[in-house]
Amino acid sequence: MDFEDTLKRYRKAVDNGLDLFFDNKIKEIKNPELRLNYSFMKEFVLTGGKRLRPIALIMAYKAVNGKDEKPVYIPSLSVELLHNSTLVHDDIMDEDELRRNKATVYKKSKDWFLQNYKEVEAKCSLFNNISSRFGVSSAILCGDVLLSMGYSALLVSENKNLKKALSVYNRAYTTVVDGQIMDILGGFDKKITEEEYFDIISKKTGALFKASVEIGAVLGDASEEQIKNLSNYALEAAMAFQIKDDIMDLSSGKGHEFGSDVKKGKKTLIIIKALESADSSERNKILDVLGKEEASSDEINSVIDILKSTGSIGYADEVAREKIKSAKKYLIEAGIDKEYQDFFEKLADYFVERKI
Amino acid sequence: MDFEDTLKRYRKAVDNGLDLFFDNKIKEIKNPELRLNYSFMKEFVLTGGKRLRPIALIMAYKAVNGKDEKPVYIPSLSVELLHNSTLVHDDIMDEDELRRNKATVYKKSKDWFLQNYKEVEAKCSLFNNISSRFGVSSAILCGDVLLSMGYSALLVSENKNLKKALSVYNRAYTTVVDGQIMDILGGFDKKITEEEYFDIISKKTGALFKASVEIGAVLGDASEEQIKNLSNYALEAAMAFQIKDDIMDLSSGKGHEFGSDVKKGKKTLIIIKALESADSSERNKILDVLGKEEASSDEINSVIDILKSTGSIGYADEVAREKIKSAKKYLIEAGIDKEYQDFFEKLADYFVERKI
Repeated sequence: MDFEDTLKRYRKAVDNGLDLFFDNKIKEIKNPELRLNYSFMKEFVLTGGKRLRPIALIMAYKAVNGKDEKPVYIPSLSVELLHNSTLVHDDIMDEDELRRNKATVYKKSKDWFLQNYKEVEAKCSLFNNISSRFGVSSAILCGDVLLSMGYSALLVSENKNLKKALSVYNRAYTTVVDGQIMDILGGFDKKITEEEYFDIISKKTGALFKASVEIGAVLGDASEEQIKNLSNYALEAAMAFQIKDDIMDLSSGKGHEFGSDVKKGKKTLIIIKALESADSSERNKILDVLGKEEASSDEINSVIDILKSTGSIGYADEVAREKIKSAKKYLIEAGIDKEYQDFFEKLADYFVERKI
Repeated sequence: MDFEDTLKRYRKAVDNGLDLFFDNKIKEIKNPELRLNYSFMKEFVLTGGKRLRPIALIMAYKAVNGKDEKPVYIPSLSVELLHNSTLVHDDIMDEDELRRNKATVYKKSKDWFLQNYKEVEAKCSLFNNISSRFGVSSAILCGDVLLSMGYSALLVSENKNLKKALSVYNRAYTTVVDGQIMDILGGFDKKITEEEYFDIISKKTGALFKASVEIGAVLGDASEEQIKNLSNYALEAAMAFQIKDDIMDLSSGKGHEFGSDVKKGKKTLIIIKALESADSSERNKILDVLGKEEASSDEINSVIDILKSTGSIGYADEVAREKIKSAKKYLIEAGIDKEYQDFFEKLADYFVERKI
């Protein structure tokens, strides 16, 4: 099967699994409001998403033992549910009302409140925006529930290495949250080094993709050596993915707002490099616009011009390609069948060549 | 050993375990801000707390197999960490800045931000209170990390029934969060039945105490019958605990603000009963004050007078005592050694007779 077909096939399997997983949960619930909350979560999780993490888990499992992949279909949902849990919590922190062009859980809950409790909002709005508070509370709880659903997707497995897989999963969760804490704190600190940037993205973006591949390999009973090489492959590839994401944010495209990282003041590799190589007037120009939520297109474009002229975008692109090369070296060391090696090589290439 | 001594001894063991558990984590962390975040969490978790959940876990383990309890010391921390995770998230929802007379994680983080980024706050305060947003973000993440630490406390165990214990733990987490969702949604709905109240408290307060005893019994390799009876004991006792809490909120005392449930508009069993039995002028008086955050002591006292004259407080007290009776019946069915039966009977009595 070619690469695109494999992605499509397993994406469908994962989507079906998620659909079923939510429906089984929802049909148990008697309380109507609680059921509504779960339906918000289901809608959020099932709207879009490339499902690369569960697909990588399934393919890693197949790669190391070649067996029928059905036993890992449900466990593979765990990494997607964890990912969505962190998205729901992140959307609160960023006060984002849209994701994948659809309302976030925070926004859905807020709107539901406004529709149902107009009189409460009207009574309270003088001193407090109660619908926003409600949206925040509801989204915190939805993120918590999604995480718990992630653990249950793993806990249905009868695999003999399940305990180890759970430890990998749980450690990844701590690491992702640690990365987010560091990112938030770094957001107010103008100086951040390349080393710190790599540390943050290895945690925020890298840890969960690494864990996905690692859990697949662990459940597939791979050797320690194979697990190590496949995990390293995944970590390098995921970091390249994030750097590519940073680059894509600077061009107009589908699914994101142009220059939103600049407006949010994110310290991407590109920004770090530019602040290092720009002259002082350019540096001041960048710092003026960085973190300015209401920056105009002209301002964003003038920053992008500096990022280009200093070679910072080109530099980030090169770093991403180096990471992919390194990922592929680890992949060869893992010594898996040609079919799966091909898949994971193409997946790595896709990480830096994708358009969305 | 008498009841008080047992509580004291195991409380100390749990506190030492928590202290060690945090220190092991903190010493691994290189990033200074991340380390600071963990020290906020440690301080929060280690300040006060009766540790009744981990103590119940340890005692249930001993009760069913009589063996040395050391292997469950670390696993017992899991339920305390989960409990603290939910407290940190609840404090955001309630915008509480104090708990156990000390700053909440939300407040600690907010203050840290104000101390370190005065100029950022000054720049932004015109359109946005950035320190509060930072406090919210940081507290969401701290709650997430505490939960993850809870899973790792269980995952260190080599017990043969660990998978089952993890499932109990994870299901309890979902249930607690479900209960909190229902509670938040019920907060805006003036009509709530006794049945719904019991459903909510069995989830919010009952599920985790039940799980604590159940995990102890599961790790101790109890029979299914014993597990069922001990769990039922724990659920009944925990519901009595919550009803007693509701009653205590109406008298001035240590560790809580007098009448805070009334100000927050909580639908306790007492309020539900009073709204049912009061005449229409009394009912309106209750509804006027219920949920009024700035209610005066006089207003609170006039509501309490109605709660007394309608017999609602007495009714709640009676329900709590009935639950304790029922808990003790299940305990006898569990057929554990006299020493442990004594302990759990006294624990149940303590739940409704305690002063704090």
